[in-house]
Amino acid sequence: MITRHTGDFKWEDVSVLAYQETGTNFKSITRQILFNGLGDLPCQLRYFEVQPDGYSSLEYHEHVHLVLILRGKGEVFLGDSIHAINQNDVITVPPNTWHQFKASRGDHLGFLCLVNVERDKSKLPTDEDLQELRKNPEVAAFIRS
Amino acid sequence: MITRHTGDFKWEDVSVLAYQETGTNFKSITRQILFNGLGDLPCQLRYFEVQPDGYSSLEYHEHVHLVLILRGKGEVFLGDSIHAINQNDVITVPPNTWHQFKASRGDHLGFLCLVNVERDKSKLPTDEDLQELRKNPEVAAFIRS
Repeated sequence: MITRHTGDFKWEDVSVLAYQETGTNFKSITRQILFNGLGDLPCQLRYFEVQPDGYSSLEYHEHVHLVLILRGKGEVFLGDSIHAINQNDVITVPPNTWHQFKASRGDHLGFLCLVNVERDKSKLPTDEDLQELRKNPEVAAFIRS
Repeated sequence: MITRHTGDFKWEDVSVLAYQETGTNFKSITRQILFNGLGDLPCQLRYFEVQPDGYSSLEYHEHVHLVLILRGKGEVFLGDSIHAINQNDVITVPPNTWHQFKASRGDHLGFLCLVNVERDKSKLPTDEDLQELRKNPEVAAFIRS
């Protein structure tokens, strides 16, 4: 019933996994599963860690993300704008909202991310989506795909 | 979509609330609601902070708690035994399991606690429950009610 932190954002009997099984649309990011649903909590709690040059996928989906920054700092593209994010900030990613997390401020970015155990597959940008997103020069400079 | 941490485990536009509305079976503990359900996440995320002399209610209930220690250290009575808990430890409280959190190690104890938005009411110990629990001298010395 207790999953002990063993230091440096690793946990007892928790494997450090690839961020996703396939794809080249992310960089230098790992995943650990801290909770995988029990009783009336049909939720999976993951800890993601992004190295100083890394980023998560640029994506959207129907399911909601509840994120809390546990370590370091970075930036998030969320909806249509970019925000600096710091330790203990809470970020909600609503349904069908573009998002990408980056550790672009010279530090690791480690964050908790809660999702439903049953969720839809992420959608990656089409060429048309990218063309649309890049109309905003600030967004064009930020996003990676 | 971003709830900013403003320092010292307070968040922008998040009120510091009483732990519970009524009762004398807890001490020196506050509650902040960081997320209150959205889309396919029917969950409430709370941050509880226990002062160095404080403790949460000794209770059990059908609903599950998912806890992550965000600050400091303490102890938890969980099921039938007492465990030291430290920053970043993850604690699952299964259905109908006695639990009480205490900041009894000379520090604050601040923790995230995830629950379902719809959940059953906590059950407090009867005199008979306490008599049963106190058969274990270690538990008898630990619990407050």
